[in-house]
Amino acid sequence: MDDACVVVKTNPFSPTLAADIRAKVFYAAPGISEVVVDAAGGKLTLTMRQPLPAMAQVAIEDLVRRMATRTIVAEKVLESYSGGGMQTTDPHPEAIARGLLWLAGPGTCVLGDTLSRLFEYFDAWFTRLAGQCQAESFRFPTLIPSQLLARVDYFKSFPHSLSLVYHLPENIPAIERFSTTACCAEDGKLNVSPADLAGGEYLLSPAVCFHYYQVLAGKKLDRLHVATAIGKSFRYESGNMRGLERLWDFSMREIIFVGREDDVLAKRQFTMEALSRFTRELGLAGLMEKANDPFFVGNFSLQASFQSALDLKYELRLDLPYQRGTLAVGSFNYHQAFFGKAFDITLADGAPVRTACTAFGVERWLAAVLAQYGCDPVRWPEPLRLAVTG
Amino acid sequence: MDDACVVVKTNPFSPTLAADIRAKVFYAAPGISEVVVDAAGGKLTLTMRQPLPAMAQVAIEDLVRRMATRTIVAEKVLESYSGGGMQTTDPHPEAIARGLLWLAGPGTCVLGDTLSRLFEYFDAWFTRLAGQCQAESFRFPTLIPSQLLARVDYFKSFPHSLSLVYHLPENIPAIERFSTTACCAEDGKLNVSPADLAGGEYLLSPAVCFHYYQVLAGKKLDRLHVATAIGKSFRYESGNMRGLERLWDFSMREIIFVGREDDVLAKRQFTMEALSRFTRELGLAGLMEKANDPFFVGNFSLQASFQSALDLKYELRLDLPYQRGTLAVGSFNYHQAFFGKAFDITLADGAPVRTACTAFGVERWLAAVLAQYGCDPVRWPEPLRLAVTG
Repeated sequence: MDDACVVVKTNPFSPTLAADIRAKVFYAAPGISEVVVDAAGGKLTLTMRQPLPAMAQVAIEDLVRRMATRTIVAEKVLESYSGGGMQTTDPHPEAIARGLLWLAGPGTCVLGDTLSRLFEYFDAWFTRLAGQCQAESFRFPTLIPSQLLARVDYFKSFPHSLSLVYHLPENIPAIERFSTTACCAEDGKLNVSPADLAGGEYLLSPAVCFHYYQVLAGKKLDRLHVATAIGKSFRYESGNMRGLERLWDFSMREIIFVGREDDVLAKRQFTMEALSRFTRELGLAGLMEKANDPFFVGNFSLQASFQSALDLKYELRLDLPYQRGTLAVGSFNYHQAFFGKAFDITLADGAPVRTACTAFGVERWLAAVLAQYGCDPVRWPEPLRLAVTG
Repeated sequence: MDDACVVVKTNPFSPTLAADIRAKVFYAAPGISEVVVDAAGGKLTLTMRQPLPAMAQVAIEDLVRRMATRTIVAEKVLESYSGGGMQTTDPHPEAIARGLLWLAGPGTCVLGDTLSRLFEYFDAWFTRLAGQCQAESFRFPTLIPSQLLARVDYFKSFPHSLSLVYHLPENIPAIERFSTTACCAEDGKLNVSPADLAGGEYLLSPAVCFHYYQVLAGKKLDRLHVATAIGKSFRYESGNMRGLERLWDFSMREIIFVGREDDVLAKRQFTMEALSRFTRELGLAGLMEKANDPFFVGNFSLQASFQSALDLKYELRLDLPYQRGTLAVGSFNYHQAFFGKAFDITLADGAPVRTACTAFGVERWLAAVLAQYGCDPVRWPEPLRLAVTG
């Protein structure tokens, strides 16, 4: 069928909730390709590639009702940065035409030589920052044990974005049957029934730091521990996935701090200040603000206002002029004793350690450069131009 | 239950088939933790964590019968390298005790600071080699579309090692139900029925180069194209998975050549000679030999002897003294016109391009260093010692 529009009426809600509600509505039914939100009018207009089930419509109305009860904590801007970029249109079509990138499928992309070099430039900078924090280097698996994600309550908080991994069962006739019958339907889906698969021990890592807490599990620490790693991270974002900006399969560089509260907060502050300077030096427009994690709706209201009230999360967001919006490219998180308790990591006095992490979504830095400065490196800020032409 | 031994009688078979048969037997039933092969006696001794189904026993007998019909092409050693390592025992226990690595679960591991630096040393060397081949850098997704793997006949050739990716369906009540009920069973498996999942568009990449052929699909090339990328690759190896040596989740650096036959074969030869020198300079013991790909059994016999007869695959294998065996750490592959035809990539004269690739399993280089030189960098060859202490 052709795309069709469906209007869902809700109670009017605060415009500050519009982005969060829009992001969650994509999880209500398969085939939602666009959601336009009218908060004051209490109206959501969905573009559908397939009919919207009546049950999904009820679920959306209920979702909006529940999210609207959220205590609104205004996102507080700490600093803003002005930039010199002149680009105002979506850079993706030109980037693809120039061979800078290829969209490989929903939520995945290939970076060509120029963007690979730009990626290396940013990651080398983040790695130097980690070095200034005396970080040890790690390489973590991309697969993460289900038990490890259960231990950090991930299934409760972010069930919608999980990526689960399966394999064929250990059964030779079944494997040979698959090998002769496997093919893809027109929609690109493999014609295997998930019920015929085995596995469930692993998912794809949604973040880098969880593996590090597992490494420290059960230990008593007598000093601040700092680790850094880059890894692929995976968050299924349904209809929210978009170009380089919101990938299912993306690269995250983290710097992780484990120790006493004053130490880990001082390190977090150090990285925030370094990122402020770096953003200004590069001439990238954006802002640093207090932020909330995008929990799923269950205990959304509670978690989000809790987090905001305690200054647990800050985000560095860079402008996407063509979207008249901003994109989070770095986050600075304080987890209090959550991971210390979950993994029984203690200080010398027996108290659970405090943890913090600074995380960068590397492809998003590229997205912001292209959105602000365009696809021709000649017009990029000098350090970036030199990084890809040197 | 405790582990139990089950003996499966087969016809006697050639000892040259023992390793291949052993590797495939693990796919006959869940819970096979060890397989001891007696080729001359026609006997396989399986250590089982759960009972061996009668059907699986029949399947194993049949498997051996079919694999024994394979035309045996002796693996031909082109060169061998002597090393200076004195280690003869399994390095994994000491590596774990020293905090060099952590086994995170079956087929996954965490590398600590020392091995992360050693990893960077090897990858930087491979990247310089790629630079000498005038390679362009790419970054490819870890998720690979099902349609792309179908296009390269991967489902037919290697069904046993696939990793399939799913997510929760777009259905808010189902997502919220999962979030309140998800937990792990004692065996570490998540209590979700795969039948309740959505997806099937993506698998995890089993190699790096396929994405590159997709980038070139439909193009007419007027010169040799060379690309390099590192990426996580995934091959589910059931009971074959072992420490750093055979991971489900590992890192592969590839250099990919696309062009005329003489050009791509010359580049493959150049990389083989460079690797020979590098292996000698480092004092790593091993050999370069003609090899076969580990196809699954269906058309195993045909494919393997075809490949060997045409010099399509060479492997650099390094000694694992404690195993009295060798481990493939690099492969040098010529694909003839296979990918050129599959992706409609042509030369100026309209003929399909020829492709070759040189691939390194980075963690396996670390495994070989530890197995030959032990876990104390002081005893490593000088360039490796400097790489981790500098």
